[in-house]
Amino acid sequence: MGRVTARRRVIRVRNGEVSARPDTLVAEEPLEIRLNGKPLAITMRTPGDDFALAAGFLVSEGVLGRDDELANIVYCAGATEDGSNTYNVVDVRLAPGVPVPDISLERNVYTTSSCGLCGKASLDAVRTTARWPLTDGPEPMRLAPSLLAALPDRLRAAQRVFDRTGGLHAAALFTRDGQLLDIREDVGRHNAVDKLIGRALQSGSLPLSGTVLLVSGRASFELAQKAVMAGIPVLAAVSAPSSLAVDLAAETGLTLVGFLRGASMNVYAGEERVVLG
Amino acid sequence: MGRVTARRRVIRVRNGEVSARPDTLVAEEPLEIRLNGKPLAITMRTPGDDFALAAGFLVSEGVLGRDDELANIVYCAGATEDGSNTYNVVDVRLAPGVPVPDISLERNVYTTSSCGLCGKASLDAVRTTARWPLTDGPEPMRLAPSLLAALPDRLRAAQRVFDRTGGLHAAALFTRDGQLLDIREDVGRHNAVDKLIGRALQSGSLPLSGTVLLVSGRASFELAQKAVMAGIPVLAAVSAPSSLAVDLAAETGLTLVGFLRGASMNVYAGEERVVLG
Repeated sequence: MGRVTARRRVIRVRNGEVSARPDTLVAEEPLEIRLNGKPLAITMRTPGDDFALAAGFLVSEGVLGRDDELANIVYCAGATEDGSNTYNVVDVRLAPGVPVPDISLERNVYTTSSCGLCGKASLDAVRTTARWPLTDGPEPMRLAPSLLAALPDRLRAAQRVFDRTGGLHAAALFTRDGQLLDIREDVGRHNAVDKLIGRALQSGSLPLSGTVLLVSGRASFELAQKAVMAGIPVLAAVSAPSSLAVDLAAETGLTLVGFLRGASMNVYAGEERVVLG
Repeated sequence: MGRVTARRRVIRVRNGEVSARPDTLVAEEPLEIRLNGKPLAITMRTPGDDFALAAGFLVSEGVLGRDDELANIVYCAGATEDGSNTYNVVDVRLAPGVPVPDISLERNVYTTSSCGLCGKASLDAVRTTARWPLTDGPEPMRLAPSLLAALPDRLRAAQRVFDRTGGLHAAALFTRDGQLLDIREDVGRHNAVDKLIGRALQSGSLPLSGTVLLVSGRASFELAQKAVMAGIPVLAAVSAPSSLAVDLAAETGLTLVGFLRGASMNVYAGEERVVLG
């Protein structure tokens, strides 16, 4: 697993019993994403799938939409004073002719926050940069609650690193039939989603029409934005959504399911894709 | 509670029963933080305590350390096209003579990510910008595991918005005797901590020697950094820490406790402040 986990000494206290032993932790390291050589953003992430993370980040920001817009992604050597490669700096080169966004301070601020000056501006920004409408595919999606209810267990069963560290968020992509397409883990929820979307870009499968994105935690505006930018029509979360995530879903036609636990769930928007009696 | 929560219609599914009703959600809105009039960062946050959030953010970044370094904080009118005040843009004015940090792209990248190009650089950046050593106060802190074990219930009891929305992270500050000093809630964990620290700055109580910071989720590098920058000697988390959080704690002398659940906990660094048999 390489640098996905790290070993550290820990002192365990269990009902008064104290013991010292090595423990497995989730690794966290900074990743600097450069675009055509210029620094664009830094994110704290779990190493691994770095190219996918960078590509997915750029999909979320509206820079990339098709794999042929991407020339290549490389780790930058010489990013440190002694010239060594930390594998913490990646440079994304766009294909010739693909517009390079203006990397100003403002742009950077937008990038890291994915928002405007108010909730409404945030919604508008996503709507105007989205490349595709959210589509169901050949047939309208009609998801049975029982199908949705089965997804969290499938995500958990596929989470390998979490079992050892308890420290990762997970994001999983499912078909409309509930089949697991891909799962990514990361110390940051948004990174796990970017890794999923980046891999989809790299395999030429954007937009992700007719799929369901499940996240292990809460549904923030940022996660709803990423679903919309990748063309994913259904976002389900194990925990609560925020008000702005619900507003974005309602404006863009995204189906948003929260508190997906056992046979219970709340549908906050896009209920036409859920079979409700 | 104003804009801390928002009402939205939700369709509830409970074991096959479907009902539609209004639901209370945690509010999420962007906040732009300006420093002496210049945009510095945007964060998605739960409205409320915005001035404290901005002040705490600047403590975490090493810009502010004492309340007399702060001239004032105001909401900016005219931030929107129609000139209205969204209460989503705050301007922090430093007192005369306080150095204004260089707000370059690089600075901004650092600001939003709080890190360098590798884990080691991230640790060094915190160590060199920290204003105070982590101190226990008049007497060395010797925390009984039973005292630590009691803190999560006290945090939960004081969490008012979570009860209604299930959607907030919380950060609480305790005395060495386990007395609750303050608690803040936010859709973003880092914002909850910044709000706590900002309020401490405003009341002239930095550095927070001899206190314990408890966070409801995981302990990332960023949260450990914020504890160190505010002079908080003990950070406890209900869930897992990351490798870099543990490394930062070990380097700076921060006591880091994770998986604090019932009578169980893991001590990852700074164990001299915990009574271990």
